[in-house]
Amino acid sequence: MVMMERREMNIWVVVLLVLFVLVEEVVSKKGGGGGVNIWPMPASVSHGHKSFFMSKDFQLTTEGSNYKDASCILKDGFSRFLDVVGLAHVIEGDFSKINASTILQGLNVVISSQIDELQYGVDESYKLLIPSPQNPALAHLEAKTVYGALHGLQTFSQLCQFNFSSRVIEVSKTPWTITDQPRFSFRGLLIDTSRHYQPLPTLKKVIDSMAYAKLNVFHWHIVDTQSFPLEIPSYPKLWDGAYSILERYTVADAAEIVRYAQRRGINVLAELDVPGHALSWGKGYPSLWPSKDCQQPLDVSNEFSFKVIDGILSDFSKIFKFKFVHLGGDEVNTGCWTTTPHVSKWLEKRGMNEKQAYEYFVLRAQKIALSHGYEIVNWEETFNNFGNKLNPKTVVHNWLGGGVAQKVVAAGLRCIVSNQDKWYLDHLDALWPDFYMNEPLTNITDPKQQKLVIGGEVCMWGETVDTSDIEQTIWPRAAAAAERLWTPYDNLAKDPVEVIGRLTNFRCLLNRRGVAAAPLIGLGRSAPIEPGSCYAQ
Amino acid sequence: MVMMERREMNIWVVVLLVLFVLVEEVVSKKGGGGGVNIWPMPASVSHGHKSFFMSKDFQLTTEGSNYKDASCILKDGFSRFLDVVGLAHVIEGDFSKINASTILQGLNVVISSQIDELQYGVDESYKLLIPSPQNPALAHLEAKTVYGALHGLQTFSQLCQFNFSSRVIEVSKTPWTITDQPRFSFRGLLIDTSRHYQPLPTLKKVIDSMAYAKLNVFHWHIVDTQSFPLEIPSYPKLWDGAYSILERYTVADAAEIVRYAQRRGINVLAELDVPGHALSWGKGYPSLWPSKDCQQPLDVSNEFSFKVIDGILSDFSKIFKFKFVHLGGDEVNTGCWTTTPHVSKWLEKRGMNEKQAYEYFVLRAQKIALSHGYEIVNWEETFNNFGNKLNPKTVVHNWLGGGVAQKVVAAGLRCIVSNQDKWYLDHLDALWPDFYMNEPLTNITDPKQQKLVIGGEVCMWGETVDTSDIEQTIWPRAAAAAERLWTPYDNLAKDPVEVIGRLTNFRCLLNRRGVAAAPLIGLGRSAPIEPGSCYAQ
Repeated sequence: MVMMERREMNIWVVVLLVLFVLVEEVVSKKGGGGGVNIWPMPASVSHGHKSFFMSKDFQLTTEGSNYKDASCILKDGFSRFLDVVGLAHVIEGDFSKINASTILQGLNVVISSQIDELQYGVDESYKLLIPSPQNPALAHLEAKTVYGALHGLQTFSQLCQFNFSSRVIEVSKTPWTITDQPRFSFRGLLIDTSRHYQPLPTLKKVIDSMAYAKLNVFHWHIVDTQSFPLEIPSYPKLWDGAYSILERYTVADAAEIVRYAQRRGINVLAELDVPGHALSWGKGYPSLWPSKDCQQPLDVSNEFSFKVIDGILSDFSKIFKFKFVHLGGDEVNTGCWTTTPHVSKWLEKRGMNEKQAYEYFVLRAQKIALSHGYEIVNWEETFNNFGNKLNPKTVVHNWLGGGVAQKVVAAGLRCIVSNQDKWYLDHLDALWPDFYMNEPLTNITDPKQQKLVIGGEVCMWGETVDTSDIEQTIWPRAAAAAERLWTPYDNLAKDPVEVIGRLTNFRCLLNRRGVAAAPLIGLGRSAPIEPGSCYAQ
Repeated sequence: MVMMERREMNIWVVVLLVLFVLVEEVVSKKGGGGGVNIWPMPASVSHGHKSFFMSKDFQLTTEGSNYKDASCILKDGFSRFLDVVGLAHVIEGDFSKINASTILQGLNVVISSQIDELQYGVDESYKLLIPSPQNPALAHLEAKTVYGALHGLQTFSQLCQFNFSSRVIEVSKTPWTITDQPRFSFRGLLIDTSRHYQPLPTLKKVIDSMAYAKLNVFHWHIVDTQSFPLEIPSYPKLWDGAYSILERYTVADAAEIVRYAQRRGINVLAELDVPGHALSWGKGYPSLWPSKDCQQPLDVSNEFSFKVIDGILSDFSKIFKFKFVHLGGDEVNTGCWTTTPHVSKWLEKRGMNEKQAYEYFVLRAQKIALSHGYEIVNWEETFNNFGNKLNPKTVVHNWLGGGVAQKVVAAGLRCIVSNQDKWYLDHLDALWPDFYMNEPLTNITDPKQQKLVIGGEVCMWGETVDTSDIEQTIWPRAAAAAERLWTPYDNLAKDPVEVIGRLTNFRCLLNRRGVAAAPLIGLGRSAPIEPGSCYAQ
């Protein structure tokens, strides 16, 4: 994608600075604002004013549940819940001094489905009651699937706060009744491991933080022009295109990422961007280049190009079990095809111009992906150029700007929204209010067409992002988009100013969990400008 | 401390950019340069050219050791060693395909001292042999104390590398014979939790990374003008000066930090900066202010000021068991003392001018600290103003610039070096070569005086640093200073260019361990400027 770091002052920088000065006293006194401090805001919330306290021996029970948890997805999720809730302070309270009727002994989780396959469209709804009306010594969480239950645990964790008087974890404002489900089924974050290699611990930490914000698709833009870090057993020289021998992922590493994400309710959307953005492939197999001097797009005239794509997608299908694969198709500069003699001859013989060749390449790659059981995501240029030729199983991935989704769904195709002016995290001048206000259904009113917008994605292109700055470039801006994608439209703030306190609170919560989320004030990933409370920055 | 972010281009920015362009090809091909990739460089290293491979069931044994490890410091250190070594990739190799005589089954650690008290000057030396000449199926580590053994484990971990052919951990270039010990006994990093509150997980991660670089003093600048986050049981309203109710540390939290650091061989030096930098104390106890309108330094005329210092240091002595406490004493602007009527009257009555009152305050605070069993560290202004009056147990902490240490040791006092132009991490224009080349013994030739320089410290002042950017502001620059403080003078590079490859390698190793160490190119905490290998940035 084209990188731009426009340096003009975004109006929000000024507005936010003024607002924070005004609200600083209020916010910092309350430790993050009053009201309901849950991010993203659930579909329905009601609460009271009584406090409960979590027992030191807080237990998971599953009475009445159909789900067997054979792979310990729930058990591990509960264990992570206890970890994040207990991270910030030493819990040393004397429970004998706390009224026994206000102590929560545990959480009972009731899951109705036995199936724990994580697939696109899985039921993510949950209902959380604290305490349980039937048994006030327990909290109660029910969900159709274990993945809904994981979301419930995330919500629960945000209601838990260390109490400095009793020195135990407090859940204030009970009784809580929360029923919740996502507005969109596809809520993604793109990570680019080609422009900079991101080590496994970095990717895992990003996945952890995605779960905190209820994002559910890790779009792994694995390879690109600059490097090819992934092992492909069918074509073992492809990862010769890695930056260095250490900056590579084995198949087992990739499978570990998929496993790690899946256990947190997150699918991995693998991308193989063709025919452009593929220069690094030729380091191992130079015949994929039109010529040594003109190295991309992949040589459309060479059957080997499609053989390699077939091999890669065959290997992908053993690792990446998500319903979709992303085939890219963006920013294809066909210059090399017309200037390289053997390719231009081939075009001539076929009676194709370059645009037709681009279409031919994309559609042929689609067919290969379909043959491996995938549905396809393609960047919007494919739709803009030959939308009516795309396989009906295509999801068009918008990025160039606004207004694309409405054309895509009018054509009967599905769409993912990522317009770069609002949802590209590498655009440091796109601030969190821009992220928050970007509405995927803009100008789409027909309910049938609305359903074709399956969701959206924020994109962390890696040109200037490595382990040293990835977290603060992602957060808190990705969280602003996460609420847009999760929360029912009518519950969303109409003015982002209304959510400053709550988003600040979520950012400080991320910090308390060790996630390097940046201040709300300033451009993306700005350092704090002066001393001050987390709740006023 | 005075904050400056000078924006002039440091000459090293240019030099490094050019160098990286030149070395990029070489470095990236080798995955981090050849030779001995250990940081900081040990006192003595020799190696061969044979590879060993770590068994999947790599064990700790302690045959011949006197140390009982009752508190599991060694066992936990070994467990962390296994964790960091296995983080980057899935270890899936088939050991039946590896020559059995090249498999390391474990590490035998021999510790001669039974004592595991971590105190200033504890023996940190170790000897590491891989494999053991006696038993080539094991590596061999010996040390006087468990803390020396922990350093040996850190060195060992840097020799372990995932091998992409065998898919197991390889130790290449064996046999290794490493004997090692630090040049200076005090190797510190200052963290400031007053300008921004740093949550416990953030502090713990910083402590983890300090251990990777063999730093051994966590100088905790807990409170300052802006906020007072720590609970003081003797004066329970002091932490009313915290930024918010959530941005506080309980006594148990502080004790947990001390415990966590100690188990990694790191002492905690607590600072109570008086009489300046103490405005926040008066939020809970306004009578500590000279007046409501003139709020610092602490009121020298009020006995309550010293009573509170006594109470705090009494509480400190139960948590912070390090031999030293830091009493600050820097940047004292006595204006409030002369302009506040009751204070100026008091001065007049005593026949004191403001300078004498400053001396009176510092020396009285010293006496209180001594009464609680501490030796004292004070910032250099105390020495510059009344060095001959300081208690002989004082260690003078240099910060204003170079050339101070030689005056301090000539006066017979001990010194810690932190000259701001080279070792202040908040000075973003002080680059890693500046950090590397800053020699604590400059112009000190008398061996007796040299011994009085007990070490040095890099300082991470918190004005623009919170969880979002602390790691990349610290690393890799703190590592450059860490080698200066650890490695024998004769083994240090005379030109920082010589260590680019090895420091780059250490930075990439930190990244692989999930530490957000910044690129070597650019000012402190700069984002990577373009796509590329970690080994070329």
